[in-house]
Amino acid sequence: MDLLKKKILEEGKVIGTDILKVDSFLNHQIDVGLAQEMGKAFYERFKDRGINKILTVESSGIGLSCIAAQYFNNAKVVFGKKNKAKTQDNSCYEAEVYSYTRGVINQIRIAKKYLSKDDTVLILDDFMAMGGAANGLLSIAEQAGAKVAGIAICIEKGFQGGGDKLREQGYDLYSLAIVDSMDENKGIVFRD
Amino acid sequence: MDLLKKKILEEGKVIGTDILKVDSFLNHQIDVGLAQEMGKAFYERFKDRGINKILTVESSGIGLSCIAAQYFNNAKVVFGKKNKAKTQDNSCYEAEVYSYTRGVINQIRIAKKYLSKDDTVLILDDFMAMGGAANGLLSIAEQAGAKVAGIAICIEKGFQGGGDKLREQGYDLYSLAIVDSMDENKGIVFRD
Repeated sequence: MDLLKKKILEEGKVIGTDILKVDSFLNHQIDVGLAQEMGKAFYERFKDRGINKILTVESSGIGLSCIAAQYFNNAKVVFGKKNKAKTQDNSCYEAEVYSYTRGVINQIRIAKKYLSKDDTVLILDDFMAMGGAANGLLSIAEQAGAKVAGIAICIEKGFQGGGDKLREQGYDLYSLAIVDSMDENKGIVFRD
Repeated sequence: MDLLKKKILEEGKVIGTDILKVDSFLNHQIDVGLAQEMGKAFYERFKDRGINKILTVESSGIGLSCIAAQYFNNAKVVFGKKNKAKTQDNSCYEAEVYSYTRGVINQIRIAKKYLSKDDTVLILDDFMAMGGAANGLLSIAEQAGAKVAGIAICIEKGFQGGGDKLREQGYDLYSLAIVDSMDENKGIVFRD
């Protein structure tokens, strides 16, 4: 998606060869106009799949998922929680997710009552590196018996391999920008 | 706001006398159609204030803030982060926030470059109890020299006092539903 790639080149900051900071528009400050365009692009790709729910994980995926859901006839958004709240009951699907940017393993949870075999879901997230979050959500969808229509990612770090592994497994993964390499000095190379 | 109060009465679950679970539509599963109506209501109240940014904290506030921002001419959303990511630099405003539902104190951080004296902000969150999150964001806005146009809350637990304290301090706090008392057996009483 040219608009996103342009924004990454203009505002993204590469640290070393594996960290891409895009917190001016994606995951700390959020550019809602850009999020709308990304939501429309996801809709164009997945509109015929009968999607009634968007699954994501806290925190950065939530805003994008809510904006995108509007184009899917206000599909419900369900987000995996990383910490247990006093108000969260015990009847949850769980999966382990390794967060590359934080260097920790999180247990993510989705209450059983919000996901079932009657749901057709789109998994959506801002970033994909090794694919930890997507794999965690896939595990939860499988536990619930929900149908996974596809996986929608804003920025995939292609060189970390998580995306291609999911494609090999047959998932319909659509990333709006795939970074095949990056370097503080040499810049960012997108996959065609 | 009648639509929200109706939804709380239909789907909310009171636990004891101080916990209100609304995770079927507000903070685990998100009803995006309802979020749009809440966003419009916030816009009606605050539309003439020159708001260019919406401030919230992760996680539950993010989706609502992104939906609401659309009505404020796609104001940027900036959310306070609770954990430090590898990709987060050190130049941040910080404040301490006590989370009533989790029973922990979080340090929230907003990067200095995303908030300044040129900003007029709306502070937005899903819940207000003691007012911890709002006070943390107010502190950060003050540190940045940003103007606070108002505070927008979906559900205020009026009996916990945080909202009325902020009103006494002169803040324009607008809550779409104020719960003045609740009880597992006697139900929920809204403030008129």
